[in-house]
This record gives sequence, structure tokens and C-alpha cells, in this order.
Amino acid sequence: MIRFYCPDIEQNPVMPEMESGHCVRVLRHQPGDLLEVVDGRGGLYTVRLVDAHPKRAMIEIVERRDCPFYWEGKLVVGVAPTKNMDRMEWLVEKGTEVGMDGFFPLLCRFSERKEIKRERLEKTAVSAMKQSLKATLPEIGEMTPFARFIDKYKGFPGKFIAHCVDDGERRLLSREYHPGEDTVILIGPEGDFSAEEIRMALDAGFVPVSLGEARLRTETAALTALETFHIVGQLKKQ
Amino acid sequence: MIRFYCPDIEQNPVMPEMESGHCVRVLRHQPGDLLEVVDGRGGLYTVRLVDAHPKRAMIEIVERRDCPFYWEGKLVVGVAPTKNMDRMEWLVEKGTEVGMDGFFPLLCRFSERKEIKRERLEKTAVSAMKQSLKATLPEIGEMTPFARFIDKYKGFPGKFIAHCVDDGERRLLSREYHPGEDTVILIGPEGDFSAEEIRMALDAGFVPVSLGEARLRTETAALTALETFHIVGQLKKQ
Repeated sequence: MIRFYCPDIEQNPVMPEMESGHCVRVLRHQPGDLLEVVDGRGGLYTVRLVDAHPKRAMIEIVERRDCPFYWEGKLVVGVAPTKNMDRMEWLVEKGTEVGMDGFFPLLCRFSERKEIKRERLEKTAVSAMKQSLKATLPEIGEMTPFARFIDKYKGFPGKFIAHCVDDGERRLLSREYHPGEDTVILIGPEGDFSAEEIRMALDAGFVPVSLGEARLRTETAALTALETFHIVGQLKKQ
Repeated sequence: MIRFYCPDIEQNPVMPEMESGHCVRVLRHQPGDLLEVVDGRGGLYTVRLVDAHPKRAMIEIVERRDCPFYWEGKLVVGVAPTKNMDRMEWLVEKGTEVGMDGFFPLLCRFSERKEIKRERLEKTAVSAMKQSLKATLPEIGEMTPFARFIDKYKGFPGKFIAHCVDDGERRLLSREYHPGEDTVILIGPEGDFSAEEIRMALDAGFVPVSLGEARLRTETAALTALETFHIVGQLKKQ
């Protein structure tokens, strides 16, 4: 069954313009039809279409239930965006499918891209959330300066940085990650993090990790980190 | 350092046209320059450019060494291709980056796409191999009928099918996979495998598995299976 997205359903039971168009113009739903709606915060609703307006479809809630959430602890990735925006959209789609709580583009010394179309990334996340039958929308952040991001997440118990400096120090993320803990990982640009950024992260308690022996592109590294969290989580679960 | 691809280097030390153009026209290498070349079968060569021909650059081998290979046992995915060819190219790129030995498009009862541009997929694999500093090119198969694929791989000790029929039978791939064993996994089309295809696979000894609780697109499921193999492999390694 197709799910629609209505973030403010409790306060304002009107579907956003895009969702209304999809529901009324494309799928031709009629007043009285029962629909499934998610609010992006874990709420899954059965609603009745009241006014089939193609831009402001009005609905009324028939039933609300919490959508089962299958991982514990927040999973957040901070990624220096690639030059090619498609690769970031791809990452947001795949990250939302496998499961993440937050995606933040990092403004690093060597970032190849200094601004990002946040709205486009959020649209991608919304359709991936609906497509993968989730009710929770990951937070898609604005471009965030590296230092500010470090400061924002220094309180998380799980803090990792996947830099590429071969200092022999790095252990595998799959062995360092503790399922259930709020966890954040930093993925650098093609030119890697600067020495100063790495020092800043280590000083804030971030643990340097490797994702394995393969050399991965930025977006592949970020997805591999998320896959690692979920697969290690599966193995630890009883 | 950029690596070039020359599959027949031992028999015929001339770079393929695309590689020659990249080496001579784009990077402007001169006779006498030392280059790194891979043969796609694990061989990594230091070579000297002899004739800087833009279409048939001739080289001579200075040194050959085996490129370290970081997983044991073959890892093969059979995937019912998606309607959108980009998603298959993406999968071949990412699968090559994280590491796979074979990719086969499966002709299933409900496959959304009945033919595939094999050459395009192989080009994607070649550049992903070079970009991720591997020397081994995964085998990119032709479109293969489901029954023939099952028959081809029935001898593998690790055989899995990720179907979506909720028969309560499926265990997690992350718990069933044994690192080091030659392993193959079947990933179905959006409409899933047919009941007959599932029976055929089970009769051949394929184990039904789940990749986790997320509902994943075809290409995401295939990559998640490969990530599972590598992450479980990391954890089992001493």
C-alpha cells in the first residue's frame, strides 16, 4: 500500500502540495477513501480523505499507531559532500533505506562542494522513507562547518572518524561500534580531513576507525558505515 | 597513482583504446614514463611506456607482483535487473568497490528488464576496480535464465536466496554466512521470485535468508548482501 507523508497531521490534517497531487491527480483517490499516512516522526496513521483537493487534500485521522522502529540509538553521519550532487542524493536514498537518523553535509577544509541543495536531499529522503515503508524521516542537515558539527555531537557515546591517514592507529568500525549507543561517524572528502580537523576530532573523543581494506568513495564509505551499524546490530541482538 | 587496465598484458603489452587515450591524450604520458597497470586477474604491474600511441599505447613490463586480495572464497550475486539501468550500473560500481567476484543479471519470471547492456556494466566495473585500487575485475555475466544460474552455482557451499515471501522460515544472512566459503546469493525483482523459482532454489539447496528488517530496493538489497559478507568476514577474522 502506498504511504503518504503529512508532517503536521495532528495540528493540520492537510497533505503537502506534492503529496496531495500524487494522491488526488495521479492516484485519483476520492473523498471517503482510506489512506495510510506517516508523519516522519514514527507515527503511522490510517486516514480518510475528506476533501480531494489536488494541492491541499484534507484528511481526517481514523487511527494512529507507532510504526515499529528496528534499531536502537541514533545513527548520524557527517559527510563532506562530493562534487557530484547525484552521489549525495544517492547516499541519502540508500541511507534512508537501510536506516539512519541524521545526515549532515560537512564543510571541511578540503570539501569539494561548499553548498548543498538541502530541499532536494530532503525530497529524496521523503520518497525513500515512503518506499522503504518507514515512518521516520532522517534529519537532513544544512551544510555544517566541521568544528560546529564536532561540538554538536561531542556528547554522543559512539563517536568515530574514518580518516585515511595511515597512522596504524585505526581499528575496524565493525569491532568498535556498540549497538544501541547514540553514534556518529565522520566521513571525509576525497582529499581527506586536514591534520587540524583530525586533531580537533580526536581531542573531542572521536575514535579513528577503518571501514575495511577496500578503498571506498566518500558516498560508499558513508553507506558502508551505516551498513556496519545495522549488521553488527543484527549479530548482537538476541 | 592512477592505474591502467590491460587485460592481456602478458601476451600483448598494448593498452586497450580507452586506456591508451586516457594515458596518452588526457594524461599526456611520454615514452619512458613508468606506469601502474592491472590485468583484472590480480596482477599488478609496473610498466614503461614504449610507444605513446593514443589508441594502441605500447608498454613493457618492468615488474609484476600479485595485488593483495582481502577476502577468501568467491562472492557472487545473481540479481533480477531493475527497469532503470542506472540502478544496475550503480550496483556494479558499488559492488566492485566493496568487493565481489561475480555479478549476474537474472532472467526471472517477474524481471522488469529482459536484456542488459553488458558492455556498459563492464566499463563501470573496470573504472570502479581502478578507482578502488583493486587488480581483480569481477565477472559481469550476460543475462542468465534463473534455472541455468541455479544449476551453475549449485556446487557452491554457501547458497542463499533473499525472497520476500513471509513464510517465517528465513534467518538472517549475517548469521548464516560462513566467511571463506564460496558464496552466491539470489536477489529477486520488485515483484519477488515466483513460487516455482523459490521451490527450484530450495530444491537445489539454497537457504532462504533475510537481509534485515528494512524493506530494500533490489539494488540496495544486493549491495547490503555484499556488505554483510565483508563485515561478517571482518568480525570472524582474527
